[in-house]
Amino acid sequence: MSRTLHLALSAYGVGGPGQHGLWKDPRVPANASIDIDYYIRQAKTAEQALFDAYFIVDSQFINAGYPAHYLNRLEPLTLLSAVATHTRSLGLVATASSTYNSPFNLARRFASLDQISGGRAGWNVVTSFDTQTSRNYGLDEHLDYATRYGRALESVQVVRGLWDSYEDDAFPADVERNLFLDPTRLHALNHVGEHFRVAGPLNLSRSPQGQPVIFQAGVSEEGRDLAARVAEGIYAPGESLEQAQAYFRDVKARAAALGREPDHVVIFVGASPVVGGTDAEAHRISREIFDADNDFDRKLAFLGRAFGAYDFGQHDLDAPFPDVAHLAEKGGRTHGLKLVQRARESGQTLRQVVETVTEYRPSPFTGAPDTVVDTIEHWFQAAATDGLNLRFRTLDDLDRFVADVVPLLQKRGLFRTEYEGDTLRENLGLPFPVNRHTLARETADREAAVAGTEGTV
Amino acid sequence: MSRTLHLALSAYGVGGPGQHGLWKDPRVPANASIDIDYYIRQAKTAEQALFDAYFIVDSQFINAGYPAHYLNRLEPLTLLSAVATHTRSLGLVATASSTYNSPFNLARRFASLDQISGGRAGWNVVTSFDTQTSRNYGLDEHLDYATRYGRALESVQVVRGLWDSYEDDAFPADVERNLFLDPTRLHALNHVGEHFRVAGPLNLSRSPQGQPVIFQAGVSEEGRDLAARVAEGIYAPGESLEQAQAYFRDVKARAAALGREPDHVVIFVGASPVVGGTDAEAHRISREIFDADNDFDRKLAFLGRAFGAYDFGQHDLDAPFPDVAHLAEKGGRTHGLKLVQRARESGQTLRQVVETVTEYRPSPFTGAPDTVVDTIEHWFQAAATDGLNLRFRTLDDLDRFVADVVPLLQKRGLFRTEYEGDTLRENLGLPFPVNRHTLARETADREAAVAGTEGTV
Repeated sequence: MSRTLHLALSAYGVGGPGQHGLWKDPRVPANASIDIDYYIRQAKTAEQALFDAYFIVDSQFINAGYPAHYLNRLEPLTLLSAVATHTRSLGLVATASSTYNSPFNLARRFASLDQISGGRAGWNVVTSFDTQTSRNYGLDEHLDYATRYGRALESVQVVRGLWDSYEDDAFPADVERNLFLDPTRLHALNHVGEHFRVAGPLNLSRSPQGQPVIFQAGVSEEGRDLAARVAEGIYAPGESLEQAQAYFRDVKARAAALGREPDHVVIFVGASPVVGGTDAEAHRISREIFDADNDFDRKLAFLGRAFGAYDFGQHDLDAPFPDVAHLAEKGGRTHGLKLVQRARESGQTLRQVVETVTEYRPSPFTGAPDTVVDTIEHWFQAAATDGLNLRFRTLDDLDRFVADVVPLLQKRGLFRTEYEGDTLRENLGLPFPVNRHTLARETADREAAVAGTEGTV
Repeated sequence: MSRTLHLALSAYGVGGPGQHGLWKDPRVPANASIDIDYYIRQAKTAEQALFDAYFIVDSQFINAGYPAHYLNRLEPLTLLSAVATHTRSLGLVATASSTYNSPFNLARRFASLDQISGGRAGWNVVTSFDTQTSRNYGLDEHLDYATRYGRALESVQVVRGLWDSYEDDAFPADVERNLFLDPTRLHALNHVGEHFRVAGPLNLSRSPQGQPVIFQAGVSEEGRDLAARVAEGIYAPGESLEQAQAYFRDVKARAAALGREPDHVVIFVGASPVVGGTDAEAHRISREIFDADNDFDRKLAFLGRAFGAYDFGQHDLDAPFPDVAHLAEKGGRTHGLKLVQRARESGQTLRQVVETVTEYRPSPFTGAPDTVVDTIEHWFQAAATDGLNLRFRTLDDLDRFVADVVPLLQKRGLFRTEYEGDTLRENLGLPFPVNRHTLARETADREAAVAGTEGTV
């Protein structure tokens, strides 16, 4: 097979209490979201099933109205570092904010995870959605969209520069020459940009995969642009086949326009499969899951997240949806503006908006195993995605997918039957990034050789 | 025994290439400083020997002249998180700079390690010694001493406040009442101080030990003051018995003057034992170790570290020691000023200063096992220290200490024969820190009850 399906497991869906009401499920331990053994168990299952990566979302702001799994969770890099020594081929992708971390610290922590895991780290670059996060970091105001995305791009550039501080042959450790480090292979960065000034070098060498893999999940204009420029993996929305195809076309075209190889931008649409013995059983389970957690007040509270933790409780539920468009700018703008626009066009009340936003929509990946595999194959062949970022409600659901769906994917030649390698880059089919300084010197040497040859001719 | 000896293992001495020339020792793998299995092996040995803690130093600035183990090393929190799941009672103490990390990020990462380890995390608070570290974080100038220590104190206060965001009964997870979180048990911090503004709350609950343990290693006036105010563990210099006694007296008295219980400030002097079959053999080994790494140029280069990576190579080695006192202010001031003063008083040349600073001084803990145990007992009984922060050159040396010295310490009733508990606080004999909000409410409830009783009498 020339093109391979990629599978990632998103921990927060399983690492419960997971989605909103999941803490009530007796199969989910009450402290699952902070139980490292629960995460290790998931990761080992994902690795046995030959998944590409294990993915941890993140946020740094909460209030009491947030869903259970936001309230109490481990920091992604410490979490994945603990998982690293219990796995050997599974990619480990941690979310970290370019808005609220210095590039030097980001470079170190991801490089450290990359060494600890033997070349399996990925950085999911986010700019932080929740407006009020700023108040945990000394800022009264959330940075605006353009500034956050400008910082994100520059942060990735700085971090990548720092990751190349040491060339791969920097440490000869030659006792005879008394040479531990070859100082010609250590490079300062001396970056001076709009948002950051970082001298370097970094005090950590490159892992077997050269550099951690950059992930991103942008849907806005700025987000897609950033993804096209720097992302090697993308977590994309997967609401419908058509929407996913449009996103896929757009982002791959943007990458190509920037001179990048579109296959080196691996798109994972989010998918929450519900697998049953029959299609009917799967749809029944899916509906039960929805009904068990249909809590209007909690949904109303969470709607405020798109508008900077705005309190919609102050409005009449049966009056027209309030005009909160101006609050979307500094939050997750695309989502917020879409909500406001839809409400305005339809003339919906606040109650109707909440009900519409949270109405029952079964996952496209609901059905008997064969049906789910048909859908995955269709999405994959129809250029809607390169892979799936899978969310499950419980370990049982993950186990069922692994037992019933993965073998069918393999039988159809869609999914690997063994890992391509032990680094994340190898399994994603991404090229090894030659160190920029090595590349520059080799290029210079080649040019000098050519010039020398020409000179002697 | 009422007072117990405490033992910590400092990883960087073993986690080689360790001290300057250790990379040349064939028993030390060339990549030991970035090999997580090498660290896990050390930690497991320390735990089998019932050590209190495993300690990781850190720095964020290098140049090519720095010793081998500085050049290439893992970030402490990711390192210790990986070690956590391979141990169950050993304390895990990571160094992190209060100068170059935001308190919210520090609070999260240490709380995360504390949860992952089941209550075994410690934070060694440093203000960052190397002047040029600032240039990796966008600052042209290193913050001065007073600012760095002011930030350190406020950072610890903020971090501790964030660690108490959730009271210990915050998550009833009561299905019948549909109550995952009890919102009255979640508290914002709303800190506004000289250096930081942090709203909170933190999105992570407290571990079984309540809060990570605060460590510090100050020797300057500001450092000792900070230690007396906030440190629960101290890494102290152990150059001589008299110096250690003076430090011990001073810091315990400062803590007592601030109303703290001196026993709740546990002092570990640094110790690099060299154990031989006989005292003579141990001293011969010690001398050999020194001679194998007596590299003048490297020592000259490293001397500059106390003065902001100053290049002493530009001076005549046989002229009087240059006046670099002004460069000490922003580096490790105490050490730098002492060097300058000693050189001035003695009229030494630059060459003589380098030779004096690095002259052969055997560790006080050099000798046959019985001799080493005599010395440890003497230091412990003579109120020079509560414990040792042990550095070894190789795993062999660690193994030898564990096999030959630890059993003698136990036989004399100086050291534990089993762990007091599975949290770092329990093993250090530190009290459980009741959540400040729980304490305040319980106090208010008691006062109300008393007032009520009085009212009815």
